[in-house]
Amino acid sequence: MTARGLFVSFEGIDGSGKSTQARRLAETLRAEGRNVVLTREPGGSPGAEEIRALLLQGDPDRWSPETEILLFTAARRDHLERVIRPALAEGKIVICDRFADSTRLYQGLRGSDLRAKVDALHDLMIGVEPDLTLLIDMEPAEGLKRALARHGPEARFEGFGEALQTQMRQGFLDLAAAAPQRFRLIDGARSEDAVASDCATALAEVMA
Amino acid sequence: MTARGLFVSFEGIDGSGKSTQARRLAETLRAEGRNVVLTREPGGSPGAEEIRALLLQGDPDRWSPETEILLFTAARRDHLERVIRPALAEGKIVICDRFADSTRLYQGLRGSDLRAKVDALHDLMIGVEPDLTLLIDMEPAEGLKRALARHGPEARFEGFGEALQTQMRQGFLDLAAAAPQRFRLIDGARSEDAVASDCATALAEVMA
Repeated sequence: MTARGLFVSFEGIDGSGKSTQARRLAETLRAEGRNVVLTREPGGSPGAEEIRALLLQGDPDRWSPETEILLFTAARRDHLERVIRPALAEGKIVICDRFADSTRLYQGLRGSDLRAKVDALHDLMIGVEPDLTLLIDMEPAEGLKRALARHGPEARFEGFGEALQTQMRQGFLDLAAAAPQRFRLIDGARSEDAVASDCATALAEVMA
Repeated sequence: MTARGLFVSFEGIDGSGKSTQARRLAETLRAEGRNVVLTREPGGSPGAEEIRALLLQGDPDRWSPETEILLFTAARRDHLERVIRPALAEGKIVICDRFADSTRLYQGLRGSDLRAKVDALHDLMIGVEPDLTLLIDMEPAEGLKRALARHGPEARFEGFGEALQTQMRQGFLDLAAAAPQRFRLIDGARSEDAVASDCATALAEVMA
């Protein structure tokens, strides 16, 4: 690890435990005396949180997939400039709950040429990948069970179909296979403590 | 003119009278019984107006130039899909007060590589130009005088410096020279009636 800090993202399907594990890793590192910024996407900076509100509030069909990826990319650019880059420049560890990989899958799978547009927008306006991406992998059926337990049976939530979750899981595994240097695959179908321990070990290896 | 309708934009520096002329042209065409949609950017559709509010409210430095061009492009994509394309498909004449040329200059001139980013974003996510762009041309000093009379001396308004207005005017003239088929140059330093007459004539020629 250089003086530049370290940029770590958590990715995985709904219910995989990403957010819990991101928080636990931040707590572990802080207990070791490290300077950590825990953040999330979409959002993470005041401007990006305003764009997040546009994305998540109102009718789910209010934005076309193309407008949506422009808004996600605008939010990411703001988050990168205002929070992530300054923290890395100060040598901090940035832990981000979701980053560009989520857009590649959640938005990229909404239409046949959308993934290419997501990638082109990323190259043009973001151009940064995490140093380490912890992919919390899990059977879609298990993720669904956990997500439904959290949101309750009435929760109107898009993407809870098992077919879509299966497609998302495979998409994450494909991204990981294409960038093995950046990704570490973590088996999420175990106790929270066991998963947290693996995440901390993966980070320690990268920092060694 | 085909059954596809006609897409007309008005461009020019602040104070050039674009908005007045766009409204007058719409009135003239409606008086002739034509089906006209008068719209404006940024904004022009409910979603794009929400993005406009993010762009125009608050601290002028709240967005970086890069985030700003992403938000402008998101607003344009929404406006195009929800208002402009459906109206053209119904054979209507769409008159838009500012379109992509304004972003090319106002945002594109904010940094050395920004114009290239504006162009790449346009090609990737918009890909449409007006059939006709009426450029209301005017000496920057005259535009400034008119704009200050409208906004009042206390108006906090970026871009009121004559040097910047001169750069904008030249930028519009350069865009027009590069796309002579699309642009018609209108001398805006005359009476409102004379300018309106020239705009109507330019439109009639394109529709002939």
